[in-house]
Amino acid sequence: MTMATISTAGGHYTLINVFRVAPENQRRMYDIILEATGVITAFPGYVSANVHLSDDGTRVVNYAQWRSKADFEAMRAHPAVQEHFAACRALAEIEPIFCRVAYTHEV
Amino acid sequence: MTMATISTAGGHYTLINVFRVAPENQRRMYDIILEATGVITAFPGYVSANVHLSDDGTRVVNYAQWRSKADFEAMRAHPAVQEHFAACRALAEIEPIFCRVAYTHEV
Repeated sequence: MTMATISTAGGHYTLINVFRVAPENQRRMYDIILEATGVITAFPGYVSANVHLSDDGTRVVNYAQWRSKADFEAMRAHPAVQEHFAACRALAEIEPIFCRVAYTHEV
Repeated sequence: MTMATISTAGGHYTLINVFRVAPENQRRMYDIILEATGVITAFPGYVSANVHLSDDGTRVVNYAQWRSKADFEAMRAHPAVQEHFAACRALAEIEPIFCRVAYTHEV
């Protein structure tokens, strides 16, 4: 089973990427993100991708982890990923939230 | 070390709660969420809370996991949490994304 962990100790650079879509496009958006992930996972510093589907159909959220901001930026600037990003932008309004884990609590 | 896991196998009901704030209020928003979490963790079905601070200061994101939607809804309707929710609404524009994990990949 594949599984990512959320922890303040990991020190990962985290991108919570929110894709707003029309509900009829949620599945297509999901497929495009998975296609992009297939390319992105080969880049140095990639840690994990975790794709979520909202109940109401209007969001796809990728909770992505990278070793560092520099690794993420190098990937984002690479020619190989530009067509994937363009496909995402064509279908969704994208709100990227670059952040770090400040607090975690689990029962 | 406290640590949450993201997995399609967990079957958790996930709420990615995005709090938009003025940068000068990010720390206060974070404190309010932690105060609320101190109350919420006592409810049945609570699994984890994972609070993130955006680099640009304009977001606090709580990635929260519950055993089920019914457990979450019972907590949300309880009188004990209403003042905490009101405090959140007073400071932030809140975008709650109720979702499930559809795909995870980790190196």
